[in-house]
Amino acid sequence: MNLNIDHRYCVIMCGGVGSRFWPMSRTDMPKQFLDFFGTGRSLLQQTYDRVLPVCGADHIILVTNKDYYDIIRRQLPDVKSSNILLEPARRNTAPCVCWAAHHIIALDPEAAIVTLPSDHLILKERAFLEALDEGFRFVESTDSLLTIGIKPTSPHTGYGYIQLGHEVTDWPGIRKVKSFTEKPNREMAEIFLHSGEFYWNSGMFLWKASTILNAFNQYAPEIASLFNAGADNYATPREPEFIEKNFQNANSISIDYAIMEKASNVYVKTADLGWSDLGSWKALYDASPKGQAGNVTQNCKVLATDCRRTIFATEGDKIIVAAGLNDYIIADTGKALLVYPIADEQKIRTVVNEVKDRFGEEYV
Amino acid sequence: MNLNIDHRYCVIMCGGVGSRFWPMSRTDMPKQFLDFFGTGRSLLQQTYDRVLPVCGADHIILVTNKDYYDIIRRQLPDVKSSNILLEPARRNTAPCVCWAAHHIIALDPEAAIVTLPSDHLILKERAFLEALDEGFRFVESTDSLLTIGIKPTSPHTGYGYIQLGHEVTDWPGIRKVKSFTEKPNREMAEIFLHSGEFYWNSGMFLWKASTILNAFNQYAPEIASLFNAGADNYATPREPEFIEKNFQNANSISIDYAIMEKASNVYVKTADLGWSDLGSWKALYDASPKGQAGNVTQNCKVLATDCRRTIFATEGDKIIVAAGLNDYIIADTGKALLVYPIADEQKIRTVVNEVKDRFGEEYV
Repeated sequence: MNLNIDHRYCVIMCGGVGSRFWPMSRTDMPKQFLDFFGTGRSLLQQTYDRVLPVCGADHIILVTNKDYYDIIRRQLPDVKSSNILLEPARRNTAPCVCWAAHHIIALDPEAAIVTLPSDHLILKERAFLEALDEGFRFVESTDSLLTIGIKPTSPHTGYGYIQLGHEVTDWPGIRKVKSFTEKPNREMAEIFLHSGEFYWNSGMFLWKASTILNAFNQYAPEIASLFNAGADNYATPREPEFIEKNFQNANSISIDYAIMEKASNVYVKTADLGWSDLGSWKALYDASPKGQAGNVTQNCKVLATDCRRTIFATEGDKIIVAAGLNDYIIADTGKALLVYPIADEQKIRTVVNEVKDRFGEEYV
Repeated sequence: MNLNIDHRYCVIMCGGVGSRFWPMSRTDMPKQFLDFFGTGRSLLQQTYDRVLPVCGADHIILVTNKDYYDIIRRQLPDVKSSNILLEPARRNTAPCVCWAAHHIIALDPEAAIVTLPSDHLILKERAFLEALDEGFRFVESTDSLLTIGIKPTSPHTGYGYIQLGHEVTDWPGIRKVKSFTEKPNREMAEIFLHSGEFYWNSGMFLWKASTILNAFNQYAPEIASLFNAGADNYATPREPEFIEKNFQNANSISIDYAIMEKASNVYVKTADLGWSDLGSWKALYDASPKGQAGNVTQNCKVLATDCRRTIFATEGDKIIVAAGLNDYIIADTGKALLVYPIADEQKIRTVVNEVKDRFGEEYV
């Protein structure tokens, strides 16, 4: 009884820039545009493919930085340019969500929206589609903000955790959210994991356009009033000009901080999706199929002797010959080569800054 | 009193192909054409520059494989094409030496020749020029085969050793050769080093053209008769055709085995030239200026944390970021990346063969 199926929209946020996968990811080629698993489809393309049966191409809106317009046209040539919203500045996720909701409600006042990151891995496509369907039905029939919570499989200290509240009557897979906790320390994460009461915050959200815009009015009035001022422009030829002038004045803040942690009508759909945010080389390593001695080869031909638990990544037809490495990242591009212990990967951000300072912007 | 200076010639042997510096050196770009030290001149160019004041450009003959003609024209554009002898097949050094001597004696029956490898390092240029001058004077005034012997500085097991005999009257720097020993084991090399009686065989030779051709007649009659048959063709337009037809029939054998270890008129000029054959990554490491923590950076920008005694080599503007490596080779080209312990470098030959078998000829 999906009466509202024609009102379902998807927003794919694909404007992020990350240095954690440097040198594979770079400012001009962030992670979401990379094909880490050699499937022939980048993470963005996989996200698009995954949600296509839910919303249809016309109802998928991409929000990105204007610098990535060309890459997106190349990777997703079927997306109409009117479905690509170009941010003139980097302002985190709250302004992105608010603009997209305005754009969509101008097209369809009854719209419900699933908002997705573009750079995560989801192995269980069917469970994902089921979760989205239940989530849409829930937000279509209530005025709720819904997040997808992932059953944790390890005491990960890099994720946000959602504390589950009571079950919602008639919605067995949906719980009230009791609290959010960002990146706990190890001890806390262990407690969270074993309690069974905490789920990972996947950054995937569902709501009606009207519900999220009301939440902005209530919990993030500055951002709300900035975008409310453009009400006459959304989904018209005047929209780019309005955004060009005003978007940069929005506060840079995440949707979690701006809305989800403050609102009272927040729910979580619990799911087991084979999910990873691929937020680190270790996460990528864990999510990748292992070869001999636990080595992972990303898209490349490798001759490894006496190497263990090492991740090899390069571009094109290049080959790698290595010996005697344990728990290493070997990541190679035309501009830069990284040979780094996986255990020290949190230092890569600092290293990338040093590279920029010493060798120039063109390397990062 | 260098009366014969107009009869002095140099033969630079530059047809070798080596896999020990793979992937920096490749079949289509062997070691002699590489600029390992970032001086702006390849090892071949350095060899040419070094000998130019001794013989003059017209008297420098390059012997190489026909595959390398274009590289040589590019690297040494001043060399006349008539001074480049192109071998149609790989037959080690004896046929090369014999052909070059025939070519030169056809130009100048009184010629004396210094024969040089093109891929060695010589830091003491002045000592080199003095050794060559004394060597030329010696072979010009006697019928001798002279090799340059290098005072050993370590018990190297990869070099050939020359046992010194008696001093030659009136030639204080020149000794009779008692024996040659190829690549001794470690124990033997230690004994050689400490005896003071053994010198490294540098592979640099001096002789008159007539003397070496007589030696071929006596000690390598098959090679001699093959090249003697072309006597009417050398240094004429018919030379390439004769070589094309006959060169491939020559035995593949080194000048050391074919002549030097057999002849009785063999002498050694002892010298201290700051010499290395750069025959291995370790040799290259030893010959290179060291940076922080004993690291060596060949031609590239490196950000190394907690790395020691590691050699970094890449091409172009590429940068390398590395951490936690001790005694490693990081060698990177557009086609291949090598990450290998220096201590295991003798395995690189085998690895290169495996690369060829598994990934194809284009990688080696």
